[in-house]
Amino acid sequence: MRYSRLFARTNKSAKEQDSINATLLTKAGFIDQIMAGVYIFLPLGLRVLNKIENIIRKEMDTLGAELLMSTLSPKEIWKTTGRLDTVDVLMKAVPANDAAKNRHNGEYIINPTHEDLISSIAQRFRPSYKDLPFAVYQIQTKFRNEPRAKSGLLRGREFRMKDLYSFHASEADFKQFYETVKESYKTIFDRVGVGPDTVVTLASGGDFTKEYSHEFQTICETGEDVIYIDEKNSIAYNKEVAPENKSEMKEARASEVGNLFPLGTRFPDAFGYQFTDEKGARQPIYMGSYGLGSSRLMGVLVEKFHDEQGIMWPQAVAPFTVHLIALRVSGDEIYAQLKEKNIEVLYDDREDVSAGQKFADADLIGCPWRIVVSAKTGAQIEVKRRGSAESQLMDMDDFIKSL
Amino acid sequence: MRYSRLFARTNKSAKEQDSINATLLTKAGFIDQIMAGVYIFLPLGLRVLNKIENIIRKEMDTLGAELLMSTLSPKEIWKTTGRLDTVDVLMKAVPANDAAKNRHNGEYIINPTHEDLISSIAQRFRPSYKDLPFAVYQIQTKFRNEPRAKSGLLRGREFRMKDLYSFHASEADFKQFYETVKESYKTIFDRVGVGPDTVVTLASGGDFTKEYSHEFQTICETGEDVIYIDEKNSIAYNKEVAPENKSEMKEARASEVGNLFPLGTRFPDAFGYQFTDEKGARQPIYMGSYGLGSSRLMGVLVEKFHDEQGIMWPQAVAPFTVHLIALRVSGDEIYAQLKEKNIEVLYDDREDVSAGQKFADADLIGCPWRIVVSAKTGAQIEVKRRGSAESQLMDMDDFIKSL
Repeated sequence: MRYSRLFARTNKSAKEQDSINATLLTKAGFIDQIMAGVYIFLPLGLRVLNKIENIIRKEMDTLGAELLMSTLSPKEIWKTTGRLDTVDVLMKAVPANDAAKNRHNGEYIINPTHEDLISSIAQRFRPSYKDLPFAVYQIQTKFRNEPRAKSGLLRGREFRMKDLYSFHASEADFKQFYETVKESYKTIFDRVGVGPDTVVTLASGGDFTKEYSHEFQTICETGEDVIYIDEKNSIAYNKEVAPENKSEMKEARASEVGNLFPLGTRFPDAFGYQFTDEKGARQPIYMGSYGLGSSRLMGVLVEKFHDEQGIMWPQAVAPFTVHLIALRVSGDEIYAQLKEKNIEVLYDDREDVSAGQKFADADLIGCPWRIVVSAKTGAQIEVKRRGSAESQLMDMDDFIKSL
Repeated sequence: MRYSRLFARTNKSAKEQDSINATLLTKAGFIDQIMAGVYIFLPLGLRVLNKIENIIRKEMDTLGAELLMSTLSPKEIWKTTGRLDTVDVLMKAVPANDAAKNRHNGEYIINPTHEDLISSIAQRFRPSYKDLPFAVYQIQTKFRNEPRAKSGLLRGREFRMKDLYSFHASEADFKQFYETVKESYKTIFDRVGVGPDTVVTLASGGDFTKEYSHEFQTICETGEDVIYIDEKNSIAYNKEVAPENKSEMKEARASEVGNLFPLGTRFPDAFGYQFTDEKGARQPIYMGSYGLGSSRLMGVLVEKFHDEQGIMWPQAVAPFTVHLIALRVSGDEIYAQLKEKNIEVLYDDREDVSAGQKFADADLIGCPWRIVVSAKTGAQIEVKRRGSAESQLMDMDDFIKSL
């Protein structure tokens, strides 16, 4: 893509925000804040978000079918699960003015999560023991009444999330699937580039369950959580569930990037969703839910991968693989060559901007490879890896082969 | 995909609804109604929706950059454009219970459209005459306080929509772009299969503008609108703007599938968004907005392409190209061959279902090609085009080549 086509430009003078991800993503033109906890994804940001979500999608497709549930639902569903009056992030949609109220005065729950809705409909499609187990997932915008929206993409009132739900005829079958989801999450975090620094922790089940849940926590200096890693026993704990004697454990700051909840039979039971076994007897259905905030993960990646100059995207989720800068010569031919080879390239084709500013913008945006063409480089190109101090002159063909 | 993996099954006994699209899409397992005007997209439905949206996206990418705006916005934005109290489809998000209210008592507008929000932020990124013209678009879930949600996907309270916005330094430049959008829309409707039956009509500007707007209307027996086509002068009218003497025009029922609004300088003006010309003088900015409801279009396609047995998807948006049915022999090998050739195939691998039910389900779901393998077909396959009475035995290779 040509830089001149991007709607949003870098804005190095944008004010510092309460977190590194908010500050850098805003300055680099990936996101823009509309109000506390609510951001727009600008073209560069949407590219990264799509890449993260496609990595998630590919892995989830091995576990279940993708669907798209509604954001709105009737109050009755939340009343049935007993959560209508208790969930304090719950919002509802109501007419915004008298003209709207006079036309149609309805109220709808804005689902902050979908355990309730999926349990209410699953019975219609999966009534029998032959229909179990099954899993479905969606990737969707979610809304929550966060009292303190903060830290950019880490805690928002509107955010993107993948949510997976599974239903089983026995607890044993549920537990096996739960472990499979853990492996899928590991693959996802490996692929986006945080695998080695991401651990599975025991966590409280919160509103959902009295059992432990599990979180995926990415170790990160600016992380909002403190975790304790018991390396001897290959187990880690969130602070609120850690054992008393933590002296033998490694303490680390970390950011939550995913969670797994064993929900038992609570949600299906609420809707009378049970299955009929081979002998004709009614049996309870075991359920799990598995969240992964894709926009939050984007924020964590920036918290983890940046330097003084800007963002350093892992290649798998970078908005573009190559950032092409042409200095007083045309880069059109190189741009065409890269596109022809299906290499994603951001081409800084601006003519009224200094070399220094183009270099600074490339570092701020953080694509893995910077290529410069100029009178000096002749028939070759100057190649620099983001974060490296060294650049080298190469033939275009050799660079393309190296990717 | 294996039929057994689909979350949702066909349900021929599902009750008749108020429209053909709602009835057929529900019976065939594409959508499921949560409440009036609110549907879930089940796996088959999401596949069709994604295909429609990708056709739209490809065309829109030639006009502008894709971004993803927020659903929530502060009231101030709508106050600034004078629409906070007047737009009667406007909803707001508020805490759903006392627990939520006690934690954080905020109210946010749920944007039913984004002229207001995009105008409020464009200035930040595109302040100068050198930044004009530009266009941005998004594909997003929208929410509207419809008094009479009806007709399945045709008029919902929650629906999917592509919205494009353009900004220009002169009315002449705007008008040129407006015509380019018309051409892009024609390409989209051609590609999804309704091109020959879709006409551009003059329509009222509604709340947006005192000028005419334009609509794309697809001629369809069950259409909610009446249009008048003046073939001699190559122009068409929506009923409310048609000239008195309609006797020489062709009257037709049609469904709106897209709209184009010339907005003048109203929205940019409201936010003081003007540009500075070469001479340093402030000048107004001309704006257009261009909508295309992707979920609505899916509904219109079903209204138009169906028969007594079910849906007949145009190939470009069909959930799968091929519906493979195996009768008392294994279809696994054929399934693998089709997948290897990247042909999208739905494989009915159910063993406890009669041949008759499998055929009926294939007709209901409506993929373009049905393939049967059985003891009778031997090394060949039986191929039938959806809607054709004839089937023929073919070699697998010949079928693949024919696609």
